[in-house]
Amino acid sequence: MKTNTIIASALALAFGCCSAFAQQAIFGGNEIVSPQRNENGTVTFRCFAPGAGQVLLTGDMLPTTKAETPYGTFDVPGVANLTKGENGIWEYTTPEMVSPELYTYNFIVDGSRALDMNNVWVNRDVATLTSVLLVPGERAELYDIKDVPHGTVSKRWYESKAAGFSRRISVYTPAGYEDSPRKRYPVVYVLHGVGGDEDAWLTQGRAAQILDNLIAQGKAEPMIAVFTNGNISQEAAPLENSMGYTRPTMALPRTMDGVFEEAFPEIVKFVDSNYRTIAKKQKRAICGLSMGGFHSLHISLNYPDMFNYTGLFSAAISHESDANAANDIYKDFDGKLARYFEKNPKLFWIGCGDTDFLYNANVEMRAKLDSAAYPYTYMETSGGHIWRNWRIYLSEYLPLLFKD
Amino acid sequence: MKTNTIIASALALAFGCCSAFAQQAIFGGNEIVSPQRNENGTVTFRCFAPGAGQVLLTGDMLPTTKAETPYGTFDVPGVANLTKGENGIWEYTTPEMVSPELYTYNFIVDGSRALDMNNVWVNRDVATLTSVLLVPGERAELYDIKDVPHGTVSKRWYESKAAGFSRRISVYTPAGYEDSPRKRYPVVYVLHGVGGDEDAWLTQGRAAQILDNLIAQGKAEPMIAVFTNGNISQEAAPLENSMGYTRPTMALPRTMDGVFEEAFPEIVKFVDSNYRTIAKKQKRAICGLSMGGFHSLHISLNYPDMFNYTGLFSAAISHESDANAANDIYKDFDGKLARYFEKNPKLFWIGCGDTDFLYNANVEMRAKLDSAAYPYTYMETSGGHIWRNWRIYLSEYLPLLFKD
Repeated sequence: MKTNTIIASALALAFGCCSAFAQQAIFGGNEIVSPQRNENGTVTFRCFAPGAGQVLLTGDMLPTTKAETPYGTFDVPGVANLTKGENGIWEYTTPEMVSPELYTYNFIVDGSRALDMNNVWVNRDVATLTSVLLVPGERAELYDIKDVPHGTVSKRWYESKAAGFSRRISVYTPAGYEDSPRKRYPVVYVLHGVGGDEDAWLTQGRAAQILDNLIAQGKAEPMIAVFTNGNISQEAAPLENSMGYTRPTMALPRTMDGVFEEAFPEIVKFVDSNYRTIAKKQKRAICGLSMGGFHSLHISLNYPDMFNYTGLFSAAISHESDANAANDIYKDFDGKLARYFEKNPKLFWIGCGDTDFLYNANVEMRAKLDSAAYPYTYMETSGGHIWRNWRIYLSEYLPLLFKD
Repeated sequence: MKTNTIIASALALAFGCCSAFAQQAIFGGNEIVSPQRNENGTVTFRCFAPGAGQVLLTGDMLPTTKAETPYGTFDVPGVANLTKGENGIWEYTTPEMVSPELYTYNFIVDGSRALDMNNVWVNRDVATLTSVLLVPGERAELYDIKDVPHGTVSKRWYESKAAGFSRRISVYTPAGYEDSPRKRYPVVYVLHGVGGDEDAWLTQGRAAQILDNLIAQGKAEPMIAVFTNGNISQEAAPLENSMGYTRPTMALPRTMDGVFEEAFPEIVKFVDSNYRTIAKKQKRAICGLSMGGFHSLHISLNYPDMFNYTGLFSAAISHESDANAANDIYKDFDGKLARYFEKNPKLFWIGCGDTDFLYNANVEMRAKLDSAAYPYTYMETSGGHIWRNWRIYLSEYLPLLFKD
């Protein structure tokens, strides 16, 4: 097809280099491969920085260490020096194979943190941008896009009476949902941590991939998953907010004033009205990480007929009764805990990393449960308050749901 | 609420600085505001680069120019020098106010292209990452998130017989779609350019915002919009592909071999089966940019009973008859054009920039239409083959649809 071949070639040529057409769309960049997974399991990182005096790599695929640089001491999860090579390209190859996992990393070019511009996979964690490396295999196989039926992921708005404005949720409906119009599904509500939003579990959390893969393997029941936004003062993730752009922050107001938890039934009602759910406790689960674990705990205790499964992932657990609590949601913790367990929930699941700064709070919580002989399942992993653990906890939690 | 205040503070503190908890999730970064829109309409950009010898800004808010640097000559759309200030923070303020528009930009730190790490708004255009600045106002008001009812945006998979595997589309359903279960809607199909995918119009194109705002203003009819993936050899956008990650490229195979266009009815059928559409020509539109304009043209001509509205945005127009065409889709162009216009389509819309490298191809196409007195609407804008123009064309095209 002569004519079209010429057009295709012209288009490719026109965009092959950003210098060719200053007034055309900017494409191109350097044809550098980074990160490059090598056959022996090591990974090579490359950065084009012809004028730089130093290029560092920092990322969680490297051992944790302190890095001395001309610009100060960097205490980061792993730092390595790249070596300057031909044509201004700096390079670093890991000395050993990199284990299967989803990693995030940055370069530091002359003291300036930078993304890997040759890697289009970028994560945002609150206000921090990082490049992403996925080494599939073992657990990380669940985080990869596989040739399996894929669910639908929607960004949807609901009217929040509690907030007084529309708010955004992300909704995963499993493969087959649209083709089986009479089938109804259980629902898991998955809550983010402080500074996060309704996108967090779908980006760093790889929740859609985990659900697709576990369901395809027959390990998890086909289910709807709802990813809420726990920042009741906001409509949505920062770039989806009509209130004007503000830099994402850990210091949002009203994240733990109880209104989000108190108003949670309005979300459940919306989901039950808009999706083919099985609208009863036996087919509802909730879980959350950090602040989302705190939210999940208080929602479960205050609405003990709503969820049969509760998962606390590195939860910011508050279990002290406080008579002066501003919101009734947080009052009478011990009494609510007793009434919650009287109703025999199917699963109360706790996961925590052994170096998590919330480890002791979780130890205390388990001691409280033990002393009253309340049944729960506990998983302890290595490491701290990190997404690696939260992906593991979600992967362990989902197969336990809705089996009866 | 004492306990929760302490927890909230502890969480904020723990994540306030990435050096505090090397084994905790990485948050933090520098508390630098960039870009900063100043009261007088200028914009200030800031970059933390303590060890750098030179920091440049390049972006389409600056006049096009050639930049001489120690690392070579950069022929880019605008370059400015940042000035090193206190604490390693480099800064540049535009000399004049920046007009309303959605801009993309990069820093160049000692010759290394970098994102603005203090700006979480990142665009991917094929393989190129840029930071984004939106200055609302005038036309760009349509690209902003406003306090109006928002449609739902879904990522959905359909079985493609033509491709032999599942493929991904993005679907916009207008606000109110879910609340009016008996109402049916017209559909516009919106096609991307070479190297793009089903995400492109929703990111750089701001299509969901444009639709939300035009519909809320009563300027466009409530409609469903479908964003296809025109790369028939691929399942989905690069990071959503089970075929393994490959760097996004302009040189994908089979983008113009006719199979995508030939198989387009399978997408229309899927949409008509899965959404409450008005499944007839009078309520269907198609449009596309660059390669997507080429696709839109050939789909319209080969299926003249399918679309009543066709929009070609900076289209890679091929209108030469070719008896040796590999695919019948491209044969008998003039005959198909005649039969297409015999059926009196409501709108044949062409938009092109006056410095677009495809400008002459569009001049020739219009000459051909003129010579046969085929009716069409034409819009010429300044500038080249760029997203600014494609957002304008979409904003002009949508209000013309489905008014009868």
